[in-house]
Parts: sequence; structure tokens; C-alpha cells
Amino acid sequence: MDTVDYVEEADGSDRVKAIYADIKKTFGRPFVPNLFKAMANHPAYLETTWARFKAIMGPGKLDPKTKQVIALAVSATNNCEYCINAHTAALKGMGFGDAEITELMAVVDLFNGFNKLLDGLRVESDLKP
Amino acid sequence: MDTVDYVEEADGSDRVKAIYADIKKTFGRPFVPNLFKAMANHPAYLETTWARFKAIMGPGKLDPKTKQVIALAVSATNNCEYCINAHTAALKGMGFGDAEITELMAVVDLFNGFNKLLDGLRVESDLKP
Amino acid sequence: MDTVDYVEEADGSDRVKAIYADIKKTFGRPFVPNLFKAMANHPAYLETTWARFKAIMGPGKLDPKTKQVIALAVSATNNCEYCINAHTAALKGMGFGDAEITELMAVVDLFNGFNKLLDGLRVESDLKP
Amino acid sequence: MDTVDYVEEADGSDRVKAIYADIKKTFGRPFVPNLFKAMANHPAYLETTWARFKAIMGPGKLDPKTKQVIALAVSATNNCEYCINAHTAALKGMGFGDAEITELMAVVDLFNGFNKLLDGLRVESDLKP
Amino acid sequence: MDTVDYVEEADGSDRVKAIYADIKKTFGRPFVPNLFKAMANHPAYLETTWARFKAIMGPGKLDPKTKQVIALAVSATNNCEYCINAHTAALKGMGFGDAEITELMAVVDLFNGFNKLLDGLRVESDLKP
Amino acid sequence: MDTVDYVEEADGSDRVKAIYADIKKTFGRPFVPNLFKAMANHPAYLETTWARFKAIMGPGKLDPKTKQVIALAVSATNNCEYCINAHTAALKGMGFGDAEITELMAVVDLFNGFNKLLDGLRVESDLKP
Repeated sequence: MDTVDYVEEADGSDRVKAIYADIKKTFGRPFVPNLFKAMANHPAYLETTWARFKAIMGPGKLDPKTKQVIALAVSATNNCEYCINAHTAALKGMGFGDAEITELMAVVDLFNGFNKLLDGLRVESDLKP
Repeated sequence: MDTVDYVEEADGSDRVKAIYADIKKTFGRPFVPNLFKAMANHPAYLETTWARFKAIMGPGKLDPKTKQVIALAVSATNNCEYCINAHTAALKGMGFGDAEITELMAVVDLFNGFNKLLDGLRVESDLKP
Repeated sequence: MDTVDYVEEADGSDRVKAIYADIKKTFGRPFVPNLFKAMANHPAYLETTWARFKAIMGPGKLDPKTKQVIALAVSATNNCEYCINAHTAALKGMGFGDAEITELMAVVDLFNGFNKLLDGLRVESDLKP
Repeated sequence: MDTVDYVEEADGSDRVKAIYADIKKTFGRPFVPNLFKAMANHPAYLETTWARFKAIMGPGKLDPKTKQVIALAVSATNNCEYCINAHTAALKGMGFGDAEITELMAVVDLFNGFNKLLDGLRVESDLKP
Repeated sequence: MDTVDYVEEADGSDRVKAIYADIKKTFGRPFVPNLFKAMANHPAYLETTWARFKAIMGPGKLDPKTKQVIALAVSATNNCEYCINAHTAALKGMGFGDAEITELMAVVDLFNGFNKLLDGLRVESDLKP
Repeated sequence: MDTVDYVEEADGSDRVKAIYADIKKTFGRPFVPNLFKAMANHPAYLETTWARFKAIMGPGKLDPKTKQVIALAVSATNNCEYCINAHTAALKGMGFGDAEITELMAVVDLFNGFNKLLDGLRVESDLKP
């Protein structure tokens, strides 16, 4: 179903294998997600994207749960099934239940609607940062 | 520039005036945002949308800051200028500075990109909730 | 496949059961659509959203068929399978055949294309409301 | 602000001039909208797009007002300012006032929200055409 | 699963049959893609769309491979499975392997992310055409 | 108008100054685009994003012009004014004139329309990679 082959762990170059090892260690999972095995068809892309992923999702001003919330809100807005599944799973692992997930999606519902109403009527901005 | 007239406070029906009063009280602002003044061209829509807005954005499992973060992430993904301005302002009022806003947008950038990569290569979901 | 459990009719609170009864009566169907059974994980969201749904989709200036046409055009533009199925079914129930559905989608095709051409070339607006 | 020059009426080839004349006659307007003057940088594209425009927007199973409603719903969902302005103007010319435009956008708001909620929770389709 | 019936070759009018013959000849394939068999429910739409397709995708300033690249980049951004499959297949037929497809999607990933960051922070344009 | 301050060259840390110098050298421009000056509010994000930008847009299987074409097609589909301006300028610098830009957008128009038609009618994929 995927349009490119995944680069399996056994088949990667040493550079790819080292990144795969770091991915498994960072996520604490025994496998490399398909996302990265698809990217590995372009090793420099995999390498720089993984470094950037760690810089963005690692420690910072926002806590890890908030970042997962953003990831899920964006992915729902874009209807990306892979990411919706992955970030819902991550949030459930952080203690979100059906009530929290549904409340998050209520906010996603609300503002996806408002965004289009505001654009569709060309409403002028009156609350500025 | 807006494509419909706003219903100004002086011109609204008693029903609209009562909603406007509640909007000002709820937001603690001396004016009614244009969003609601545009909606008031359809009073039943204004009334039920305002009640729903309070139910979604009011107290719940998620805290108010997280809900503003979702609102901004969705609005950035949809490129809705009015909402981006309003929710950036709200977050700044809650203590976000340029570093926090930029970190939020870094996560928005990351997952908008990943969403399309995953869709574009039809990568199969391997992390399920 | 859904990421939250549906609240089944037998399991809902009295408040949820009353809304479910109204949903079945309003649609004239013997079951509650999954959309609302997912929402019921957040009862205040379900309640206010259902009230708003009736205010928007009920009697007004636009006739019910036109509202279904808008729902389908929006859902096709967003590629929401659930909504495309539901609103195509609704329109077929109102007398639309394959010719009408296809003509509707021809207009959707036309303006989704024009929208992006106009944005992509930054064409200046010369037809204003 | 536009990124390509418009092909002005005086500068077009005979082929372009003939299409421009038909556009003005069809719309009953004394000028050619910028949309078509931008397209004219690729005359075969202009010619076949204009023929298709007339086939889709001309007499058919759906009436002209319904087609303008679809055009506006799609354009609001995509946030295309040029098209929002043009189709709001067209609907106002067909008798829509602020109440009708706002009611149309209420439906756009409703289903843009529902689309993302349904996608975000991966709700399974239970209403099929 | 499709919401309208396809017009099969045996069932089309003479006008539709002639277009189908041209489609098969142009693509060098023994069958008519479902896209066109769905469109055939509105013959004038099929006819003018096919003529326009040939004008846009036929010989011009851009070479055929570049046009397929654009088609795939657009389709990935919109998450249209049918088009992603079709244009990936077309590019593979023109010599693209997994490395090229993945590199194309890396660029799609990069700019889908940047687009939203730039919109979300309302960054002002400083590189103009 | 931007919602965060840009980090001007004089105000950046040594790490940011070094990246700015590399950006100016790589683009051959005397200034740092606002995109990067906004990112610099989160230095690790700027640093890893710039490294990734060079890995994706640098030498590879696809030539630089094709990558700019993808960037513009994506940006038009997302209606990102900053990126549309920047990549149109880049392509004009590589020899594209109004005819080429318009032909590119004709393909963008065509497939944005087809994507939504195919989704809206749930047309089944028959051309697989």
C-alpha cells in the first residue's frame, strides 16, 4: 500500500543503522516506526530530520504533553491517519482517556469551524497580539 | 472589507443585546468581537454557538492554556489571520513570550510536514491507540 | 478503528439518553449516528452541539436541500469520508441521482482548482460584494 | 501584487480577444475579470478552461443559485479571497442579503468543524449512500 | 464504495464512447480510468474536462515529468489517495525510483511545514517576484 | 504584523550569528530572510531546520529547478503568500517567465480540482504504483 519500500533495519547502511538505534532508544520501543523507514530512502533527509525532531520535541519551554496535543490537533485538521493514531496513542500513554481526547477534538471542531466562518465573511481582525 | 454588515450593539434585538452583554462579561472586554457581530445576522446561530463556545472553552479536563494552544495550532494550520491574531494575543496574556510562541509553531511546522510526507508515501500506520 | 469508545445508548446518563432520543426523533432513524455517540464522551459538548445543529440545519432562509449541498461541497473539499457518505445519502433521499451528484462535484472541482490558481498567482480581486 | 502580468484586452492575440469578447458577453460585464487575464498567459489553458466553465456553470440539473452557493462554500473552506468576494457578490445580485450569506456560512462553519472531529476521532461511517 | 455508478464503456452514449476511445489512445492503456467513468455521468463536463486535460498536460513550456511532479506534490498536500497512486505510478514509469519519490516528498514535507510556520507567525514577505 | 519579533543580526547569539552568516552565503544575498529571523527565537529549531533545509534543497536526485517547482506548487495549494512570492521569485531567477509560471499553475489548478472530485465521489483507485 505504501508507494516506496521501507528500508528495513537489516538493509540500512551503517549511518542509517546508527540513526535507527537512536530512534529505538529515544522512543523506548523495540522497532523503528515506518515513518523513519520510509525516510531512509534519502539518508541525509532522515538524518537531519531526526536531529530536528529531537530538537523540537525534546525539552523546551513547552512540556511534552502540550507538544503531543499540538501534534494531534494539527493531524486531525489535516486528516492524517498515521499521525492521528500515533499521537492519540502517545497521549493515552500520558494519561489521556476518552474524555480528554474528545475534549481536545471539541476544541479542534470549534476552531476549524470558526476559521472558515471568519475567512468566509472576511471578518476584520479586532484582537491583535 | 467584510462581506456582511456587523450587527452593532445599538442595533441588536433584545435577544442579541443579552448575548452581547454575556460575551463582554465572559471575556472581560469592553467590546464585542467582530466574530460575534457578524454571526448576529442569524440570531439563533449566534445564541447556540455562544452557548457551545462556553461549554467547550469553559472548565473541563483540559486547562484554558492548553485550549488556546489547540486553537492557535489549528488556526495556523488553516491560515486564519483573525484567529491567529486572537489566540496569539490570548496566549501572550497568559504568559507566553516569543520563545513559547515560536516553539509552538515549530511543532506545528514539524507535523504539518510529517502529515503530508506520510500521506504522500501512503505509509502504513504502526502506532495505534 | 475509532480512537475513542462510542457511548452506547444503554450506557449514557439520563441527559445523554434524552439527547439520543431527540436525535433519533429528529432524523427519523432507529439509531444514533456514531458522530454523536463519540461526542457523548463530553456530554456538555454533545448537548450544545446538538442544539446548535438544529438551529443551523432547521428552518431558515435557505432550504434543507441547499444546506445538504453545502455540507457535501465542504466535506468533499476536506475529504471527510464519513460526511461525504452521510450527505450524499441525504441528497439521494431528497431526489438527487448520479447526474445531480456529479454536477455538484463538477462545481466543487472547478472552484477548488480556481481557488488555488488565484492564490498561486496572487490575482487581485476585481469583483467585490 | 500579482506574480504574473495580466494580458490586457488590447494586447491579446485574436484568439484571446475572441474569448475575452465571449466572457464579457456571457457575464454581461464591461470588463474581463483578472482571473481570465492571468490565464491568458497560456492561451490553450484559457480557451479550454473557459469552455469548461460554461459547460459546468451553464444550464444543467442544478440551478444557477445553487452553483454559486457551492462556489462560495468551497471558496470559504479554502480561504480564497478573490473567489469569496466574487461569489458573495454574485449571490447578492441574485437576492441574498446578510441573513442568507450568514446562514450559508453557519453551515460551512458547522461542517468544517464536524469534518475534523470525525477525522480526528476516526469515527466509522454508518450512513452510506 | 464510490458514491455514483461509473458509466461503463458499453453503456455510454456515442459521444461518451468517442471520448473514451481518445482517452485510451492518449494514455496507451486498454481501459478508461475510473476518474473519467465517474465524470461521464455529466457528459459535457467529461468532454470539456478531457479537452482541458490534454491542453494542460500536453506539450508546452514544462516537460511531462515536471507536470507529473507537480501533480504528485499537489496530491500529497491534499492527501488524495487516487491521485497519489496514479502520479507515483506515472513517475515510476518515467524512471523515478524510491530515492527520487522520497526526495520529492522531502521537499513536500519541508514546504508544507514552512508554509504553516510562516502563516502562523504572520511573517512578512521579503522576497518578492 | 508578525506576531513575534524577528531576531535581528546584531542581536543574535554567536550561534545564531554563525547560522545567519551561512544563510547569507548559501543564498548569495546580503540579508537573512524573515523566515529565519523569526525561527531564531528558538535557536535549536533554527539550527536543525537550516541543516535540514540544506540537506533537502541541496544536490540530490532532483535538480534545483524541480525542487523550486515543488515548493511553489505546495505553497499555492496552501495559499502561503510568503512562500508563493519567494519561490516565484526563485523560478524567475532561473529563467521562468509568465508563460511558465502560468503553465505551472494550470497544473496546480487541474489537480486541486481532480483531487476533490475524486475524494468527493469516493472514486476507487485503479492506477497503482
